[in-house]
Amino acid sequence: MNLLEAEELIRNRLSDRRYRHSLQVASVARDMARDMGVDEDQAYLAGIVHDYAKGMSGGELLALAERHCLVEDEVERLAPDLLHAEVGAYLLATEHGVTDTQVLDAVRNHTLGRIGMSELEKIIFLADMIEPGRDFPGIERLRCVARRDLDQGMILAIESTLRYCMERRSLIHPRTVLVRNYILAALPRDKILW
Amino acid sequence: MNLLEAEELIRNRLSDRRYRHSLQVASVARDMARDMGVDEDQAYLAGIVHDYAKGMSGGELLALAERHCLVEDEVERLAPDLLHAEVGAYLLATEHGVTDTQVLDAVRNHTLGRIGMSELEKIIFLADMIEPGRDFPGIERLRCVARRDLDQGMILAIESTLRYCMERRSLIHPRTVLVRNYILAALPRDKILW
Repeated sequence: MNLLEAEELIRNRLSDRRYRHSLQVASVARDMARDMGVDEDQAYLAGIVHDYAKGMSGGELLALAERHCLVEDEVERLAPDLLHAEVGAYLLATEHGVTDTQVLDAVRNHTLGRIGMSELEKIIFLADMIEPGRDFPGIERLRCVARRDLDQGMILAIESTLRYCMERRSLIHPRTVLVRNYILAALPRDKILW
Repeated sequence: MNLLEAEELIRNRLSDRRYRHSLQVASVARDMARDMGVDEDQAYLAGIVHDYAKGMSGGELLALAERHCLVEDEVERLAPDLLHAEVGAYLLATEHGVTDTQVLDAVRNHTLGRIGMSELEKIIFLADMIEPGRDFPGIERLRCVARRDLDQGMILAIESTLRYCMERRSLIHPRTVLVRNYILAALPRDKILW
């Protein structure tokens, strides 16, 4: 799938608002990739398609995930919107012939992350949170940090998600904490932000 | 072990400061138990001995835990102080003949909690956080809520711990989040605090 085909696919599938968000994530991801020596076209493509399954209802997501053994944790049954990343990657591979596993991993892990994320995965995770349409407490600091250091950006981004979940009294996916621990434990002490 | 023997054991083992903390946890736990129809002597005993292993160094805790297969998660190897609860229960059972499994569970789970905690376990977890010597942002609300509703208190207490870990950039034990999810998912919507 080339970039124009991807844009067309998403424009026809998602709402205007979500299509604009996808374009902005793709654009930020391409800029970050350029700065960090990551393939810009892969980053743009992953950014465009990252929310492919976002228009599906929780019920549809869960039914498809159950059918194809994509459920990892009970939290996904109670908050099935979390499955849009995993299901999106699945549908892009099976229905649209996307074969680039790096792009598929970036789609799959853009919401929860995973232990051992690639730079491309981190870029899409972060671009999704810092694109110009986003606004939440601490976003300016996150934008600044994420553009300089992907790991430090990931820690701030995950902590922002944890605070958001606590404020809304939402369930917290256990992988969120595992990924933060993994990145934090690997970071040299003098690179930990205070 | 009766209550006087327990007080004597802890007075000789922990610092004066920690002994006072233990007495205060025991006293708060007994009050909470009385209010909630839980055995007061069990609560007082568990409160007195809950920090039995707290004076041990991280290295000692980890060595003992490794020797007896008490390590559950990699986070405990990186932050071995977390093991003082598990190791305390182990030593009370094997070296001091404590056989009351409800008391041992309350000691074992007073720091991280567990899925399916008993009322006594929740009382010790909460009494440890709200005893009069404690002071941190939000403690007055936590004291008020914990004395009325153990589950709502557990959610606030865990969220306070998560915020503390994020502020200090400490690792977060994954069980913390699993316990919050478990309690939150079981709570009727109209009982969730906002």
